[in-house]
Amino acid sequence: MQSKTYVYAFDATETKDKMLLGGKGANLAIMTSIGLPVPPGLTITTEACNEYLAGEGQFPEGLEAQLQDELRKLEHDTGKVFGDDANPLLVSVRSGAAISMPGMMDTILNLGLNDRTVEGLAQATGDERFAFDCYRRFIQMYSDVVLGIEQYEFEAILTELKHNRQVQFDHELPAADLRQLVASFKQVVVKRTGQAFPQEPFEQLLMAVRAVFGSWNNQRAIVYRKINNIPDHLGTAVNVQTMVFGNMGNDSGTGVAFTRNPATGEKRIYGEYLINAQGEDVVAGIRTPEPIASLANDMPKIYEEFVRICGILEKHYHDMQDIEFTVEKGKLYILQTRSGKRTTAAAIRIAVEMVQEGAITKEEALLRVEPAQLDQLLHRRIDPAATVDVIAKGLPASPGAAYGAIVFDADEAEALGQQGHKVLLVRTETTPDDIHGMVVAEGVLTARGGMTSHAAVVARGMGKPCVSGCEAIKIDYASEQFTADGRVFKKGDIVSIDGATGRVMAGEIKMIEPELSADFNTLLAWADEVPGLGVRANADTPADALKAREFGAKGIGLVRTEHMFMATDRLPLAQRMILAENKEERAAALEQLQVMQEDDFYGILKVMSGYPVCIRLLDPPLHEFLPQAEQLLVDITTLKLTDGDKEELAAKEALLAKVRSLSEFNPMLGHRGCRLGVTFPEIYQMQARAIFNAMARLVQEGHQVTTEVELPLVGNIKELTLLKQEVTQIADAVQAETGVTLDYHVGTMIELPRACLIADQIAAESGFFTFGTNDLTQTTFGFSRDDAEGKFLPQYLEAGILTENPFAVIDREGVGELMRIAVERGRSAKPEISIGICGEHGGNPNSIEFCHEIGLDYVSCSPYRVPIARLAAAQAALKKKD
Amino acid sequence: MQSKTYVYAFDATETKDKMLLGGKGANLAIMTSIGLPVPPGLTITTEACNEYLAGEGQFPEGLEAQLQDELRKLEHDTGKVFGDDANPLLVSVRSGAAISMPGMMDTILNLGLNDRTVEGLAQATGDERFAFDCYRRFIQMYSDVVLGIEQYEFEAILTELKHNRQVQFDHELPAADLRQLVASFKQVVVKRTGQAFPQEPFEQLLMAVRAVFGSWNNQRAIVYRKINNIPDHLGTAVNVQTMVFGNMGNDSGTGVAFTRNPATGEKRIYGEYLINAQGEDVVAGIRTPEPIASLANDMPKIYEEFVRICGILEKHYHDMQDIEFTVEKGKLYILQTRSGKRTTAAAIRIAVEMVQEGAITKEEALLRVEPAQLDQLLHRRIDPAATVDVIAKGLPASPGAAYGAIVFDADEAEALGQQGHKVLLVRTETTPDDIHGMVVAEGVLTARGGMTSHAAVVARGMGKPCVSGCEAIKIDYASEQFTADGRVFKKGDIVSIDGATGRVMAGEIKMIEPELSADFNTLLAWADEVPGLGVRANADTPADALKAREFGAKGIGLVRTEHMFMATDRLPLAQRMILAENKEERAAALEQLQVMQEDDFYGILKVMSGYPVCIRLLDPPLHEFLPQAEQLLVDITTLKLTDGDKEELAAKEALLAKVRSLSEFNPMLGHRGCRLGVTFPEIYQMQARAIFNAMARLVQEGHQVTTEVELPLVGNIKELTLLKQEVTQIADAVQAETGVTLDYHVGTMIELPRACLIADQIAAESGFFTFGTNDLTQTTFGFSRDDAEGKFLPQYLEAGILTENPFAVIDREGVGELMRIAVERGRSAKPEISIGICGEHGGNPNSIEFCHEIGLDYVSCSPYRVPIARLAAAQAALKKKD
Repeated sequence: MQSKTYVYAFDATETKDKMLLGGKGANLAIMTSIGLPVPPGLTITTEACNEYLAGEGQFPEGLEAQLQDELRKLEHDTGKVFGDDANPLLVSVRSGAAISMPGMMDTILNLGLNDRTVEGLAQATGDERFAFDCYRRFIQMYSDVVLGIEQYEFEAILTELKHNRQVQFDHELPAADLRQLVASFKQVVVKRTGQAFPQEPFEQLLMAVRAVFGSWNNQRAIVYRKINNIPDHLGTAVNVQTMVFGNMGNDSGTGVAFTRNPATGEKRIYGEYLINAQGEDVVAGIRTPEPIASLANDMPKIYEEFVRICGILEKHYHDMQDIEFTVEKGKLYILQTRSGKRTTAAAIRIAVEMVQEGAITKEEALLRVEPAQLDQLLHRRIDPAATVDVIAKGLPASPGAAYGAIVFDADEAEALGQQGHKVLLVRTETTPDDIHGMVVAEGVLTARGGMTSHAAVVARGMGKPCVSGCEAIKIDYASEQFTADGRVFKKGDIVSIDGATGRVMAGEIKMIEPELSADFNTLLAWADEVPGLGVRANADTPADALKAREFGAKGIGLVRTEHMFMATDRLPLAQRMILAENKEERAAALEQLQVMQEDDFYGILKVMSGYPVCIRLLDPPLHEFLPQAEQLLVDITTLKLTDGDKEELAAKEALLAKVRSLSEFNPMLGHRGCRLGVTFPEIYQMQARAIFNAMARLVQEGHQVTTEVELPLVGNIKELTLLKQEVTQIADAVQAETGVTLDYHVGTMIELPRACLIADQIAAESGFFTFGTNDLTQTTFGFSRDDAEGKFLPQYLEAGILTENPFAVIDREGVGELMRIAVERGRSAKPEISIGICGEHGGNPNSIEFCHEIGLDYVSCSPYRVPIARLAAAQAALKKKD
Repeated sequence: MQSKTYVYAFDATETKDKMLLGGKGANLAIMTSIGLPVPPGLTITTEACNEYLAGEGQFPEGLEAQLQDELRKLEHDTGKVFGDDANPLLVSVRSGAAISMPGMMDTILNLGLNDRTVEGLAQATGDERFAFDCYRRFIQMYSDVVLGIEQYEFEAILTELKHNRQVQFDHELPAADLRQLVASFKQVVVKRTGQAFPQEPFEQLLMAVRAVFGSWNNQRAIVYRKINNIPDHLGTAVNVQTMVFGNMGNDSGTGVAFTRNPATGEKRIYGEYLINAQGEDVVAGIRTPEPIASLANDMPKIYEEFVRICGILEKHYHDMQDIEFTVEKGKLYILQTRSGKRTTAAAIRIAVEMVQEGAITKEEALLRVEPAQLDQLLHRRIDPAATVDVIAKGLPASPGAAYGAIVFDADEAEALGQQGHKVLLVRTETTPDDIHGMVVAEGVLTARGGMTSHAAVVARGMGKPCVSGCEAIKIDYASEQFTADGRVFKKGDIVSIDGATGRVMAGEIKMIEPELSADFNTLLAWADEVPGLGVRANADTPADALKAREFGAKGIGLVRTEHMFMATDRLPLAQRMILAENKEERAAALEQLQVMQEDDFYGILKVMSGYPVCIRLLDPPLHEFLPQAEQLLVDITTLKLTDGDKEELAAKEALLAKVRSLSEFNPMLGHRGCRLGVTFPEIYQMQARAIFNAMARLVQEGHQVTTEVELPLVGNIKELTLLKQEVTQIADAVQAETGVTLDYHVGTMIELPRACLIADQIAAESGFFTFGTNDLTQTTFGFSRDDAEGKFLPQYLEAGILTENPFAVIDREGVGELMRIAVERGRSAKPEISIGICGEHGGNPNSIEFCHEIGLDYVSCSPYRVPIARLAAAQAALKKKD
């Protein structure tokens, strides 16, 4: 019976099977087959590994013989001989499983060296130092991974030697020292193993193969497989490849190149090389490499061949390649090729141009750009080349970078801002009272509050950079300064913030302005052509809506009406409404608010004419519109002790009583959302009237207007039916008064676990629903976002208890499971119901993919995330198609 | 073809079918068949009703003829004749559907009266006044329900007449006036209908039957059926019954009696009667009824027969009966019998004695007592007969009643209490600083905070009455008084509270002490015999545990370890642990706490020897152990303005900074539960060591000890695996140190929606889990209990948006659905896992039934609810068996 084939040469034609040859082995076989000058070699199959492991350390029958045979062929092909004194064949040995996996044995280089062949290598390279350095490294690596001798024993000897020679770097040691080092290393091996370092190359090789096979079952590999659900039975292959050397004279060299410019995407080879050098010479930085273009002069033939190979590789892999090459005595070898890393701008340009070149399809192009990276093109950002002096780190609450003179008071910020000064507003936390200061500030920095704190939400709405919850800065309002990292920053000092990372930096940092290319728009237009999730934006003002439309949003998924209440001119009215002692006072305040809200809605709906707009009725608890109890308490205490104005005292005490009566232990779970609508019907009635009046005006002016009136926080079907009835009555009244037919739907935001469970009932009564995944995440996890992100969440992420921040990426196991249940139940009751998502997850690519999987109709996100969402939505659809 | 039978006499033997005869008709037929002297009559079937309604107001073929025939038999049986001047047959007409239903036509009495027969009635009763009063009432009722004339037209005439006669009550009007009233009423009928009041009795009857049939489809009935899922096709029957009169001389009379004493349960007929009277004479209160025993003298034969009938009825219905009877001219008639209402004490005694008499089975006895009512036997309560002066109403936070002199300060409460004064502690809200005052107080009253506020939880734990969240009382600490209902209550004034209803009352109210009978224990012992849910108690101290064991708890389902931290002697240590500047300080505080906790656990475990004890590791956020920011702020402001002690100021400022750094926006969703265990591992490690040390001591002393170490608020499997490992390591260490084998399990409280969804993963890693339905309700609904119960929840219940408070009764649609999912997933991963519930729902009978349905192993509740839970658990099992 003929034994199985366990060993394949790279140029064998029988198989390129990744499961059998491992990923690396298959790739080497492919490169060889497309005619690339890959240093020849062979792959021992995963099957051999599995039989070895099953057979208690016995190589399978026939493996050794096959290996011998293939080595003979290799000697023939290379003209070198394994163990030959003059012209020794040296190989590298690498593991290579079907799925890339850390924890496996890595690499042994220069296998085949021994006391005799090292001299041959010295002669061949004319570099004794190099040959002995290779040898001592080989002994070190081999001892570590095959013989199990601790590295530090060798490192200690090397360190001592450098100390004795008073040199700092390895390469400063002369050849004689390296010879001595090899001798010392071999003594260590004898001491630790009781045997001499193996001199017979084939024995070296067999032991190395055993070590690779054995490493499949080391602890780290087993744990990694368990965590990542990789089956234990895959096994690993072993790749044995001829060593080549770029330091064999001036007809040798080594280099690295990209097939296109990785910074700009321009179609021109980009890279550098060194004549008569090894790869590690580049790393050591002793000599300055030449730009790749010079190779055309130094080695015109080689350059020509290299350019040709670049073409072949791009054509084969359909992507820009990052290629390592070596020239050994006038012969070019390709050591490695892989997709090249690139900037986002380059990624877009390359993808679009490759479509235009006919190299890839539009669909492939869409999958080539990482959606999240688009963000860096949309905001001003810190120049990656700039030196930064980070003094503290907070939460990345609103993307973009800014610098300015620090100011601790909103009024002062406003005054300075209006005079043209660049200011950065620094507050412990912001409240609606600070909004006028935020409007003029370059950015906002707060010491407290999470990603959904007032500062964060308002800044994101304004598209302004914000770092929130930066507990490391200690603000002292009285002396108008903060301390951070032991340093004091006074009013007027320049500070920079990076809202994308949460970094706070001293001084003015160099920044890069955003710029959108034609390719960017081309790519996104292609994205829109892919059938799948629609993309809307969350926008609270006509300006936001316009920005969203410019970025390609097809509608608004969330208008938060409370932000309108918080504007400087509205807040006093909102407060008057809340503090009203009787119905008449309340009605008067509401009447004024209605006029303003009608204008707000008119503006937004007009900008979005032709697209649907989802307007959420008032959501936050009423106490958010009032001053904070603590400040009132300090004022009252002060007024009492200083015998202050009696009337002011009485007014403050009355206000405090109201604040207290409205205050809540857990506002997130309190008297908010549709609960307000139920208990204060006049507020929602006012808002509904404002919406329908605005719609009627626009329809009369010839606009096409569709609204979705959204009742927040429904958890009980009766909340929905009750409030829907009220809204419908008002719509009926406006239609009757104006004679205009209004195109509107009533629905709810699903943001409570209970709502997910009764989504069938909700769907039966609704025209749409959207997932408010911020709150749904809070309730499903029992996490208060404002608290968690500043307290235990970072530790949870660090300890691996959570792999992602669930407020950034939808938690599929919990929150996602509830969403899935809700979609199923909702569609079972009303298959045609429109379902969207408007939480922050709506702009997160991973979450968008999930939304596509469970069958949502659209995602909605902040205007600046719309491009990301468009691309991510297209990718989700394309991936699912595969 | 013979037509269907539409009319059945009460003594017809063909059918007793409730669906055909309605509930009332079937009952009358049954009573007749067991030989009771029921006034004869007939029932028109529900089928007739349905055909009438389907046939657009036509009586079905044959109905009128059958009715005529049965009336003839009725005349024959009674010796009276319909429409006869001298001896008229009078009947009542009543609706009677298969399921009792409000909204249907009620009752018409004395049908058959007309201008002639009224004179016959006057003669037969010798009471002209009575006869004409019957007639005018008949006209009124008939006009209302048959002719659709508004009642107020008749009432206005009657009122005017009384005004003219200057009398207050109807019965003060003489016969002549009533004659005149009849004439006036008939004029109203002519005026409103254009026709005279119908004089022909059979016509009266047919119109009344039509009215009953028609009422099946009136709006109120339709809505009621819809709400209660009663099918529309059932239809209603009509009962026509001979009128009997107890006012026909001294051989007549009327009365009401219970077959046993409804207050005590004693087996002796209990009731009262009046000779020569109608039922309404008793109501009018003109004459004082005689006790039923006197009937033995007044009418010995009748009494003897009545006693015999009581026996027959009890035997037939297997329950104590509440019987209405009338004697007409020496003949006893039973008008109605139904299960008698009774006190809880009576219910228990009757049920137990009936088992002993062989009248009912133990299972029947168990279903006879309403579990929730047991509560009144277990706590001191307001004497129902007492006059109360309610000044405010808060939340029923901890059952029981108390009175005492009001005190606004815990220190003062403690001082007075120790001197033997009865005090009631009144606070805006309580904090751990108030516990020493609560210990000595008779009860606690707070103006803020819900059913899970500090005051409520601690009071329930202590078994002390508490009314919380009583926003109607306005406390002024400075002047040591509160106002309520416009009245001022000063320190030292006596106030009573009822923790079962939330009432706050002025003065000392008479109270009833709890008392448990032997029958009570007998019944509960029977309950324990029914296989089904086990019952454990929540207990935090050895005293609670002992109380729980006395009440029959078979283990502890929840030991809250934080209450131990809050005890007066522990709190400073807990604070020192939290405020520690370094590891050493923290370790020192923890070491002292460990000694105390070990003793706590030792005491509880010893009391519960032989039963499992589930100990939850620290759950609340750490800031709960610190003073409140607001008070510190006032102190600091004061110290600053008054140029106070600099050191004190610095200390307070430092403390405030720490309080602030720990403070949370939504503590319910904050840094608590196992999140503390993850971030401050030393706390849980200390607690685990205290538990295992205590266990080891007890095992060495010969006790049998089983613990369940509960990790609260797990939402993520890695939290569980991480903390379980730590706990297990400590158990291993203690076992190694002591040589004792510890019987313990590690598990979690499932109180987050996410935990329900991953219950399979949790079960795979746990020995048990228990539902913490308080928090699960908060997160599923997105309700902060403390906020909701004081704010919108009452309105939600009133408006019918919620039918039950979900914190009292498990919301099956949302929270229950998640529990069902968790049980299914949990048992799919580990079928034998122990699953319990330890939220407040564990003591609520409706919720206990649900827990049985979804297959939990046990419920756990506060000690005082254990008897309720034992009975409810048995009932749940018995009902499911049916």
